[in-house]
Order: sequence, then C-alpha cells, then structure tokens
Amino acid sequence: MATISIPETIPSPIEDAELLRKAFVGWGTDENTIISILAHRSPSQRRLIREHYARTYGEDLLKSLDKEISGDFERVVLLWTLDPAERDALLANEAARKWHPGNNVIIEIACARSSEELFAIRRAYHARYKRSLEEDVAAHTTGDFRKLLVPLVSAYRYEGPEVNMTLAKSEAKILHGKIAEKAYSHEEIIRILTTRSKAQVIATLNHYNDEFGNPINKDLKTDPKDDFLSTLRAVIRCISTPEKYFEKVIRLAINKLGTDEGALTRIVTTRAAVDMKVIKDLYHKRNSVPLSRAISKDTSGDYEAMLLALVGQDDA
Amino acid sequence: MATISIPETIPSPIEDAELLRKAFVGWGTDENTIISILAHRSPSQRRLIREHYARTYGEDLLKSLDKEISGDFERVVLLWTLDPAERDALLANEAARKWHPGNNVIIEIACARSSEELFAIRRAYHARYKRSLEEDVAAHTTGDFRKLLVPLVSAYRYEGPEVNMTLAKSEAKILHGKIAEKAYSHEEIIRILTTRSKAQVIATLNHYNDEFGNPINKDLKTDPKDDFLSTLRAVIRCISTPEKYFEKVIRLAINKLGTDEGALTRIVTTRAAVDMKVIKDLYHKRNSVPLSRAISKDTSGDYEAMLLALVGQDDA
Repeated sequence: MATISIPETIPSPIEDAELLRKAFVGWGTDENTIISILAHRSPSQRRLIREHYARTYGEDLLKSLDKEISGDFERVVLLWTLDPAERDALLANEAARKWHPGNNVIIEIACARSSEELFAIRRAYHARYKRSLEEDVAAHTTGDFRKLLVPLVSAYRYEGPEVNMTLAKSEAKILHGKIAEKAYSHEEIIRILTTRSKAQVIATLNHYNDEFGNPINKDLKTDPKDDFLSTLRAVIRCISTPEKYFEKVIRLAINKLGTDEGALTRIVTTRAAVDMKVIKDLYHKRNSVPLSRAISKDTSGDYEAMLLALVGQDDA
Repeated sequence: MATISIPETIPSPIEDAELLRKAFVGWGTDENTIISILAHRSPSQRRLIREHYARTYGEDLLKSLDKEISGDFERVVLLWTLDPAERDALLANEAARKWHPGNNVIIEIACARSSEELFAIRRAYHARYKRSLEEDVAAHTTGDFRKLLVPLVSAYRYEGPEVNMTLAKSEAKILHGKIAEKAYSHEEIIRILTTRSKAQVIATLNHYNDEFGNPINKDLKTDPKDDFLSTLRAVIRCISTPEKYFEKVIRLAINKLGTDEGALTRIVTTRAAVDMKVIKDLYHKRNSVPLSRAISKDTSGDYEAMLLALVGQDDA
C-alpha cells in the first residue's frame, strides 16, 4: 500500500552516499540525483546511507542537504530522509511549540500511528529534545485541549482485535449522554477516546451509530466553528478512518487558495511508505482527478518532482 | 545494591528445572529445594528455568508451584519467580481492580521504576491482560485520583540529568501557590508531577524547600487523614526518595498488629534484586534492629525462609 518504488537491485549505501556527495560539491547542486536516490530507498536503506555519509564525510547528510537546497524542496527531502520515528518526533515538537487550537498534527501522530510506533516516537523525542513529548504538549496547551491531548500522546493502547460488546454498548451510551448535554470535554469522553483500544473504540462508535441514528461526528458538528469539536472529530477520524482523514488533509491543502505546502509535504512524507496507495485511490474517487495530476498542477520544480517520486505516477 | 546472592557457578537451567520437578513429585513437597534454587537466580536465569521447565514437563513452572505450595509462601515464590515487568504488571492489575484511595501500589510502580521499566510493564500488561494499564486504571478510579493516576502510569519521563533551574523556580512557585490555595488537585500540580523528568521534579522540590522554608510534603500534611494528600506525598517520595519510601512501607507492614504480608512480600520481591541493600541499611538505622531479625520475629516457616533468602542475612 506504499507508493514509493524501490529498484530491484539497489546500489550499496556506500555508492549512494558517494553519489549524493558528488551531487553537492562543485558547480551547483544536482537535485535529480538527490531525488533519484533518496526517494527510492526504504527507511533502513536511508539510515545506512546517512550512517555511511556521516562516517565518510564527517557531516550529517541532513546538514549537507540543508546547505545545498532550500524552501519546500528542502523541507520534503529533509522530512523524508529522517527515520519515521524521528520525523514524527520533529513534527510533534514543531506542533507542540507552535500549538494553537485547530492544529491537528499532534492528533494525527497520536492517533494514526500504531502503539509501538507512537512509543518509538516518544523515545526519539527524548533523544532529540531532552524532554518528553507529553511534557511539551502539556506545557504548551491549556484547558480542554490539554485534557485531551496529553493522554492521547501518552497512550499505549492495546492493539489486539478483541472487542467487548457489552462495554461498547455502555460506553456508546455514555458518549451519547455527554454529547447530548454538550459536555464535550467531559472526562468520560476523554477516558473512552484516549485509553480504549482502537478496535474497542470503533465498536463503540459503530454501536453509537446503530443505536442513536447518527454517526458520532455528525453529533459533534453542532457548531462547525468550535475548535474543540473539530479536534474531537479529528481524533475520531484518525482512529477509525485514517486514510480518509489523510485524503481530506491533502484535498484541503491542494484546494486552498495558494497550496498549503506544509500539510501536503507532511502527509506525503509520512504516508508514502505506509498507506499512500489507498489515500491516492480515495483522492481520485473524491476529486475525479488523480492525485499526481493535482500535485503537478499545484506545485513546480524540484519540489513537484520529489512529491511525484514519493506519490508515484498514476496509471494512464 | 541487591541483596540476593547468586552462587559463582550456577547449575544449568536444565538441572535447575529437573531438581524443581523432583521437589514437586512424590512424597510431599521439598520447599528447601524451591528456595535454594529460585531465591538464588537472576531474572534471566529464572526465565530460562521457566522456559526449560515448560518445554520438558508441558506445564508452566508457576502452575506447578501453585499446585504444590500455598499461602504467603506461595505468594512470595510466585511473585519472585515472575519477570520483573510481568510481576509489576500483575501487581498493578490487582491494585487497579481493587483500587481504593490510599492504595499506593500503582504509584510505587509508576514513580519508583525507570521510564524504560515502566514501559516494559505496560507492554507486559498488554500481553497478560489484553488491555492497557492506563485503560484499567482509568476505568477503576474516579475524580482527582483518576486525574493523577492515569498520567502517572502513562508517563514516559525524560531520564537525562539536565535540569532547567529557571523552570524549577517558576514551577516551585506554581506548586506553592496552588498548595496555599488548597487546590491540591489543580491541573498544574498534576502536570508538573506527572510530566517532568525526575531530575527536574527534584530540582523543583529542592527549590520549594529553599524558597518557602518547608519541604513540600510538610505543606501537604495539613490534613493527615486526607487520602488525596497522602497520595500526593507518596508520589513525591517515590520520585525523590524511593528507598526511604520502601523502608517505611516495610516498617509499617512489620509494626502492624498482625504483619501486613502483602506489603512485605511486595517490597521484598520487587526490590531484592535492585536496592534492598540500601533499604535494609535505612531500616536498621531507623528501627535499631536489622531487617532480617525483624522479619524472623514476625514471620515463620517457609515464608520466613524465602524472605530471608531474598533479603540476605545481616552481618553479625
């Protein structure tokens, strides 16, 4: 379900590192080489290239890239080149430090990753920032948002398929009751959404829909301008239908007056090796245009080329 | 700083498993063999014995032990034989299911273990109970206790030695202000105690003491019967002076009218391979009697023998 293509026979990390070094030195920078190598290697291959590069040239590959390229192209190449856990730690740190209601990056990272992935991100966060992720989220958020976001990033949800239907019914009733009272930040809503396994949350939401006649997110849309409600909806979508959530982020990023490169780059770099194929299909269906064509229309130059290398060409 | 003694040359796990099996079959049970083997093996050695035992005899060693022995002796042998993370998962599960204000086992496990240990416990909890630790703690606690306990068990604190003194000062002031207002369960108190690294919390508490003239736990003792205050004090002691905390639990367990075997067994089995040497020294100093003598006076039979094997004999 990934969209990146990795050649059947790949050069050794030593050769890749050498070619990248050559792309940096001398007359200008050879962006094509950067793209043709980095966009077509797996995370573990990229890690080996970085290790070899650092050993041989005494400089972090990311630092060299930072010197040679700039703008949106730099951002997409740097984010992509990082290890997935490191990349998410960086994105979460930026989002925490600049947090404002409506910024859903933290929710994406907390809810649309596996439990082990989220834990790897927290470990990478320690190493990179000498603090904990939950510490920074708690320090930069307030009120209801803090009550929701801190347990979300601290969660280590059970990931088995077991579902307790009695519990799903009773907790669907709790959710419905609190929503009817407009007690959207009630601790029981937060407890259910932040501690139950995803399979259990999904069973509860299905029961909610069956029993009360509406998907929960419809009942959480009473005030479309309420940031806390939109945050709750993002939590629910990232848990229950992450690919649809990602499709929508890309759609809004592209359809904006002036593309939202930040969002587009984030989703492409975090999903290209995971589920971008599904997201692309959803995008095509929803917008009647292939994602690669939409990206081509909205972006240009090396940035466009790197995005397309990650997203892959659509079938004719 | 452990008190268990492991022989210089230890038999292979195969031999140990065979001797244990012999201790179970036939005429009665040979408790001395159980103690002489299990009390003198490291966690990894015990794991190998369990693995070999299960493979050879088609039954979990713990199950065989459960059939052969009983009461306090069984409890100490079973708890000790478990892997540290499994043991803490079991203790936390019992404490969560039977939780009542004043039960500090969850705090002990959340605050007096390293971040990596706590995470290993959460992972063991998934495997054993098909749920998450925070899920069970959240489901069985309410009100202020829930607000404090859920983030405590979900924490993955940064563990580096770095301390931000400016932050320590400002957060000491926040703690003091909220305590002066008797807002003991204020979210800022909870945020500081549950998300900061232990080194940072300790720096904050030291500053509190210097600036406001009292150790924080003195200011949290205005009502000695208030369970939430005693819970906060336990959090602070488990973070800042865990060995003193453990000494006190043992002291109270032994000095009780009728020993509290549950607490004594828990502390001995969880600390014997970690810091029991320090706890013993503190105990001797505080009570003017060596811990081993106090244990001998209060317990008997195989239970006594197992505890003494774990705690070690005191110097004459």
